[in-house]
Amino acid sequence: MNSVIDITDLSVKEIDSLINTAMDMHQNPEKYSSVCKGKKLAAMFFEPSTRTRLSFEAAMLELGGSVLSVHSSATSSASKGESINDTSKVVSCYADIMAMRHPLEGAPAVAAVSASIPVINAGDGGHCHPTQTLTDLCTIKSEKGVINGLTVGFCGDLKYGRTVHSLISALARYENVRVVLISPDELKIPEYVKEGPLKNMEFSETDNLEKALPELDVLYMTRVQQERFADREQYERLRDVYILDTEKLKSAKEDMIILHPLPRVNEISVGVDADKRACYFKQVMWGKYMRMALIMLLLSGEHKGADLLEGASVTQKNCPNSRCISHTEQELPVYSKNGRCVWCDEELN
Amino acid sequence: MNSVIDITDLSVKEIDSLINTAMDMHQNPEKYSSVCKGKKLAAMFFEPSTRTRLSFEAAMLELGGSVLSVHSSATSSASKGESINDTSKVVSCYADIMAMRHPLEGAPAVAAVSASIPVINAGDGGHCHPTQTLTDLCTIKSEKGVINGLTVGFCGDLKYGRTVHSLISALARYENVRVVLISPDELKIPEYVKEGPLKNMEFSETDNLEKALPELDVLYMTRVQQERFADREQYERLRDVYILDTEKLKSAKEDMIILHPLPRVNEISVGVDADKRACYFKQVMWGKYMRMALIMLLLSGEHKGADLLEGASVTQKNCPNSRCISHTEQELPVYSKNGRCVWCDEELN
Amino acid sequence: MNSVIDITDLSVKEIDSLINTAMDMHQNPEKYSSVCKGKKLAAMFFEPSTRTRLSFEAAMLELGGSVLSVHSSATSSASKGESINDTSKVVSCYADIMAMRHPLEGAPAVAAVSASIPVINAGDGGHCHPTQTLTDLCTIKSEKGVINGLTVGFCGDLKYGRTVHSLISALARYENVRVVLISPDELKIPEYVKEGPLKNMEFSETDNLEKALPELDVLYMTRVQQERFADREQYERLRDVYILDTEKLKSAKEDMIILHPLPRVNEISVGVDADKRACYFKQVMWGKYMRMALIMLLLSGEHKGADLLEGASVTQKNCPNSRCISHTEQELPVYSKNGRCVWCDEELN
Repeated sequence: MNSVIDITDLSVKEIDSLINTAMDMHQNPEKYSSVCKGKKLAAMFFEPSTRTRLSFEAAMLELGGSVLSVHSSATSSASKGESINDTSKVVSCYADIMAMRHPLEGAPAVAAVSASIPVINAGDGGHCHPTQTLTDLCTIKSEKGVINGLTVGFCGDLKYGRTVHSLISALARYENVRVVLISPDELKIPEYVKEGPLKNMEFSETDNLEKALPELDVLYMTRVQQERFADREQYERLRDVYILDTEKLKSAKEDMIILHPLPRVNEISVGVDADKRACYFKQVMWGKYMRMALIMLLLSGEHKGADLLEGASVTQKNCPNSRCISHTEQELPVYSKNGRCVWCDEELN
Repeated sequence: MNSVIDITDLSVKEIDSLINTAMDMHQNPEKYSSVCKGKKLAAMFFEPSTRTRLSFEAAMLELGGSVLSVHSSATSSASKGESINDTSKVVSCYADIMAMRHPLEGAPAVAAVSASIPVINAGDGGHCHPTQTLTDLCTIKSEKGVINGLTVGFCGDLKYGRTVHSLISALARYENVRVVLISPDELKIPEYVKEGPLKNMEFSETDNLEKALPELDVLYMTRVQQERFADREQYERLRDVYILDTEKLKSAKEDMIILHPLPRVNEISVGVDADKRACYFKQVMWGKYMRMALIMLLLSGEHKGADLLEGASVTQKNCPNSRCISHTEQELPVYSKNGRCVWCDEELN
Repeated sequence: MNSVIDITDLSVKEIDSLINTAMDMHQNPEKYSSVCKGKKLAAMFFEPSTRTRLSFEAAMLELGGSVLSVHSSATSSASKGESINDTSKVVSCYADIMAMRHPLEGAPAVAAVSASIPVINAGDGGHCHPTQTLTDLCTIKSEKGVINGLTVGFCGDLKYGRTVHSLISALARYENVRVVLISPDELKIPEYVKEGPLKNMEFSETDNLEKALPELDVLYMTRVQQERFADREQYERLRDVYILDTEKLKSAKEDMIILHPLPRVNEISVGVDADKRACYFKQVMWGKYMRMALIMLLLSGEHKGADLLEGASVTQKNCPNSRCISHTEQELPVYSKNGRCVWCDEELN
């Protein structure tokens, strides 16, 4: 499979090579300014995500290629009920590579199986968002020089934060990365992450951002969304505890870096932006270069990932995940691999 | 007039030449990769139609040109009430050629009269969709080698199916094409098509898809939309009868080809996609090449169609078609030609 | 500051030079066809304005550059509450120059302070729309040969018409321009315009379009919007008085020119379009060339405007303008300069 749906579709070696390419692109942009001449990226955004869409589009343009853009289901044939399978086959006639954002989990995986061009998952519900993780890794590597051996703190909503789970999975494949999990009880990291990627990592949990700060090399902030809480009062009490401001930052290392997947609401005070440790806008820049590197890799045909359906078998069970694409896609079988749905990765019981 | 509003705006000779160009483009894409360098296509989509829009945009990009894109009335000055006349004159300052999709019938014709650049009708309500017909003809020609002498079956909604009426009109201009009309009573072809293009063609009508299949060279499937039926039960009974699946296909010729204007809902089972006779995704590809060929033809200035208003005269009558652009466009006269509205082709009584 | 938020950010000398460049672009487009090769314009449209967006996009494409396009808050991260500050910093990673349209007044000014790339105000509420004024000036200059010494009539809604106030400000910087203000009592020019730019100009007021016409060199028409009136009857009576038609035009000079910022609803009869004095579609063309010239100027780095916050000081007052960006932007201080809000130019009391 010449597609990237999950961050684990790329080997550590491939990721390191992508980071090196991204850093070279940053140094020598003109070297890459026409490597995709005559190629087209289809940016298929079935839910709004301006930042991610513009990042992909800017990436393709800086490679000398061009862009076909679909945003929001409201202006697409999706509203007439076209399946992901058909859309993917159609777009394969128009473009050379596709980036897909979709509210339903597994939609880009279905696209990858149907399309005759490479598919990049640009975020599917709460499932995966591999280019965000590539962005995070590249920013850490380029700002800190290494990934191995770092102490990385994650702060905020660790329960629902897809980018957190995905970055932990990726860090688990490096050496001696230590993880500090900073969150209120209501938003603690789920058990399956502890029993999964965190199993072989050193990690600790705390609800105290200020105490955790001094030991961190990287602080990864996330949004704490009001809708996760039962009552507003509790939300407002907790929200303020996890707002990063210049006062709290005083106890942090001089060379710590602050990351955030953006958009932020108010979990980082604007005053922090001027601090040299604030790297979340640099992260945006690295995101563009990593997407450029990934597009180049996939168009080169040199990435040969495992076939998604290899080792999977059709099951008569329904996927219990109500946000799985299998519930809406026409005539799509549920495939089981290691007891999980091959589309959305949910456990099939 | 240097525009294409209806398929009959192109001569058979022009269509054949477009098909030849499209086939050459498929063979030698690099020959055409910069013929529209510096030219701009305005894709004016006043209702959503992602597939058609992407086809036009991909076409222009593959010719080396670039694209200005307007989709959906919600994000356009149309919501402030700008007329088609004004929009067309404005866009003529920005682009070299325009493709217009509009829910009101006759809107692209008004644009063609107002604009100083060529206009391609990309679908106006139930009226015309000439590039779909060009797509269909090109697919038939390239897959079957000929158009003359074929037996072409149309299945599904033949009453409201704009693409069906238009393709029949186009096939009437070739020799010895035989037509088989397959539909439930509720969705039979209208009388005016029988008395028009079908008048000089051999054709038969049936409600039995399975019986009709063995004699067909081409099977053109269409969507059967629920909203066409009085009650849901009747819809569901009929829908299943006209679903094409691998079982029904067993009785068809080995070299029959299956076309569909897409998007499909479920009138062709996904299982059919793997059959070599399924050509509806190839059709998408030919659609792109035909649009490329048409854009090239119109930008060359070699197409000289009849002036839309030639031989027409202003009438004080209102057009009885409630979906005609004449009801909303500022100060637009209704013109009559051969007793029909020049904008939407409705009979004026 | 390398941005243009208000027309007064450009000197008269710069404006004259932009007009000369625009006129040369019109004569020799090929000279400019790759001056922005490899550069990207971000067209950030947080409210619909198709004409202005397409004008910017066409401008960038004709300079050989490419475009990233965001239209309407509905399909952007803005709906997740991203601040203008963050959006501007993010877009600075993707594009080389930004045009921003926003319903809140001062949003482009905030963007200009935050972004590391030049920002062009493409219209912020009722505040400014400097490229429209550049368009108007260029059309007058190229059609009349001069700006100095002309008699310019403004007709319609002079109370709320942002384009009117802005053009008067700009004309005040030329010599001997005489202004005739034609409007119903309800829509007369505000006092602050009389006491501001009109102070040193010769001007007169009237409610009679027909009487004013014969002396005009330029007639600038605007839309009279129904929502400005208390009752519908009054609106309809007044609207008709200010409709320009071929009959009224008989009393105008042979070489008068008619301008309109578009879109028009019905304040100019379609019959006038064929009159050689009607220049509102030529105006669209000049708008494109002026935007090309402005993009070139700003990307050249030769425009050095005053820093927006220079001489301003943070105040604890709230801005009384409810449409000012300061009410919604995260942690944005209100700055005061000469007693006015630096973002939206409202008087701070």
